[in-house]
Amino acid sequence: MKKFIYPDSTSLKIALTRPSMDAIDLEDLVRAIFDDVKDNGDPAIHKYTEQFDSVKLNELLVSKEEIYSAEKILSTELKVAIQLAAKNIKVFHESQHEELVKIETMPGVVCWRKSVGIEKVGLYIPGGTAPLFSTVLMLGIPASLARCKRVVMCTPSRKDGSIHPAVLFAASLVGIDEIYKIGGIQAIAGMSIGTDSIPKVHKLFGPGNQYVTAAKKYAQKFGLAIDMPAGPSELMVVADEKSNIEFIASDLLSQAEHGTDSQVLLISTDKTIIEKVEIELKKQLAALPRKSVAEKALDNSSIIVVQKDEILSIINEYAPEHLILQTSFNEFLLDGIVNAGSVFIGDFTPESAGDYASGTNHTLPTNGYAKQYSGVSLDSFVKKITFQQITEKGIQHIGPAIEEMAKEEGLEAHKNAVTVRLKSIGV
Amino acid sequence: MKKFIYPDSTSLKIALTRPSMDAIDLEDLVRAIFDDVKDNGDPAIHKYTEQFDSVKLNELLVSKEEIYSAEKILSTELKVAIQLAAKNIKVFHESQHEELVKIETMPGVVCWRKSVGIEKVGLYIPGGTAPLFSTVLMLGIPASLARCKRVVMCTPSRKDGSIHPAVLFAASLVGIDEIYKIGGIQAIAGMSIGTDSIPKVHKLFGPGNQYVTAAKKYAQKFGLAIDMPAGPSELMVVADEKSNIEFIASDLLSQAEHGTDSQVLLISTDKTIIEKVEIELKKQLAALPRKSVAEKALDNSSIIVVQKDEILSIINEYAPEHLILQTSFNEFLLDGIVNAGSVFIGDFTPESAGDYASGTNHTLPTNGYAKQYSGVSLDSFVKKITFQQITEKGIQHIGPAIEEMAKEEGLEAHKNAVTVRLKSIGV
Repeated sequence: MKKFIYPDSTSLKIALTRPSMDAIDLEDLVRAIFDDVKDNGDPAIHKYTEQFDSVKLNELLVSKEEIYSAEKILSTELKVAIQLAAKNIKVFHESQHEELVKIETMPGVVCWRKSVGIEKVGLYIPGGTAPLFSTVLMLGIPASLARCKRVVMCTPSRKDGSIHPAVLFAASLVGIDEIYKIGGIQAIAGMSIGTDSIPKVHKLFGPGNQYVTAAKKYAQKFGLAIDMPAGPSELMVVADEKSNIEFIASDLLSQAEHGTDSQVLLISTDKTIIEKVEIELKKQLAALPRKSVAEKALDNSSIIVVQKDEILSIINEYAPEHLILQTSFNEFLLDGIVNAGSVFIGDFTPESAGDYASGTNHTLPTNGYAKQYSGVSLDSFVKKITFQQITEKGIQHIGPAIEEMAKEEGLEAHKNAVTVRLKSIGV
Repeated sequence: MKKFIYPDSTSLKIALTRPSMDAIDLEDLVRAIFDDVKDNGDPAIHKYTEQFDSVKLNELLVSKEEIYSAEKILSTELKVAIQLAAKNIKVFHESQHEELVKIETMPGVVCWRKSVGIEKVGLYIPGGTAPLFSTVLMLGIPASLARCKRVVMCTPSRKDGSIHPAVLFAASLVGIDEIYKIGGIQAIAGMSIGTDSIPKVHKLFGPGNQYVTAAKKYAQKFGLAIDMPAGPSELMVVADEKSNIEFIASDLLSQAEHGTDSQVLLISTDKTIIEKVEIELKKQLAALPRKSVAEKALDNSSIIVVQKDEILSIINEYAPEHLILQTSFNEFLLDGIVNAGSVFIGDFTPESAGDYASGTNHTLPTNGYAKQYSGVSLDSFVKKITFQQITEKGIQHIGPAIEEMAKEEGLEAHKNAVTVRLKSIGV
């Protein structure tokens, strides 16, 4: 990790610079695959699955038997763990339901809004080295609570054509039974356009590699919404002289192991912890299977020693996806946080709690997007429709103002829609 | 208007087809202007304002004197009308505040989320033929309620370098005092990149012509969020044999006068109203200053006679931006509406009420986007940050599940962040 001790504003800017993303332009490839899927449907999906994933599938849809037998393969410990996480995620996301409240803005003018689940949503779950069943929970539970009518999941199969049983178990637990064994650009194209097998959805969710990311971006040209723009994952830990060095190092590494493009930042008011953290990092690193990934991520990362009163502006300028507060002045910081994805407070709140089981969502805005985006929540799976109902009395109260404004904006027909109503009741 | 009497599914599809949008690709022009603003700042903004708007400005920022004197120019009637509308919009949007509720998902594990205003937002208010001061209210009021720290407004000036006083009055009323006299691509570029005069913002709001729309789309490459994708405006009216013909015609025309690419649809269970509506449309059209615009829009539009039980699927398939229910079975329809932007219920609830003064927002998803997007609301101006705080007891409850799941996903450092904590308390 790079070290910055009481940096001036120029050095601080360098310390907070995110690793530049690979700017490979995949749009031509994405367009070609979308066009092929549009023209040829399922055969195109099969073709790319063979070509990119080296898997030849007879059937894209996961069968009921596969889902059923997944439960038997898993250990009881893992199933209990997944169930505990699912329960917490459900409790927290359930609390995000918005009550329908009718507001009488003035006598006879009643307005309200109603949350309605997006009818068809597509969840993308990456395959690859790790079976991300936690993401199945994080997307599937709010989709179910929002009462989305059709929840479609795509995830690439393993080389033998099977899906990791934990992914199937998590899907089944949250009520998802429409799972297709496809990944990459072709999966996103399938859900964006629709084929004989795969339905076209209204909104796409889920993480993915650069191909999936490029495809989700392109899907917006087909009218689909996406959960949020993607970027590499990141963590900021704020510490002081009393922080637990072992905890800090473990948190930095839990983010660093995500990918070589991950970034972790340690902000400390105490200079003396630097050396201790570095020693502890080395120690913990040695035991990690994903050591080389974590090491590369640490190269993109910084320890920054600052005064206490600079911390809030650093947090809000960087807008970290994950923010861990392990100081004796957490309460002071909490009041001033404006830009962050998810915040972990105190010594016993590691990021991995939120990644898996505390109840908050782990799909969060990266790359500074916390300045303008929220993480995934129940909100992400609903639209809010507004309603209004005006009585004869109401239009008498509100009508003249509408007429006056419409006239001034030069929209005479808007005015007339009120005038004919007022006339009909003799006003 | 085209007429479809009990259409089969093929004809219905034709009836519900939206006018195709002009697919002029403006990206090259947009990129060139963004590049110029990036390289040259304010002089580039001035150059394009002269070139495209034929206005030479000494000062981009509207002065306090201009804002102050706007109030004196306007009629009392208009000021009272704007104030009434502002009050209703404020009351309704204030009700959208989310209370902070802490949820203990399991003993010792507490999660919550907090809504925080997006720090810097940019509101675009079109100039042109109509001074859209109503849009100033619709965007400025939720921005103010969300406590966005900096609210910037851009609107092109008139040829004499002035801004319509109603726009300035509305802005002042909602607390906006940073108004720049610029429009078009250069205004969006200014707010996306930042210049000496114009701040870079985090999210862009507001309607605009195809140039503004293309620029907002491009702004996303600079990390900005936008309110929603744009499309031509539209209205669906549902009627039966008891509906008031004069009201229906006035509503159809109030939408049709928006632009030649507007679409209006009349869905009726009664065949006999067609002729009556057409006669009434002709009559009302004759008196409209924007007659030729409305006539062209009606050419894109349809009257569709259907059975009562087909209506909900038509509404939900089309996903109208505005939906007016003027039937004797409104309650039946209300329960089943899944896709719509804003719904107007009953004889005395014209669309123009929502456009101006009922309290609901008039920035709504067009082009079928109501399937996956909500209209602008207080939500659009905030991000929701999640928080979690876990006690020693809490990590004992939740820790083993996290360890189990992290292990299975192959993320050993995630597991270790829990293990070191459990060890520290002797578990």
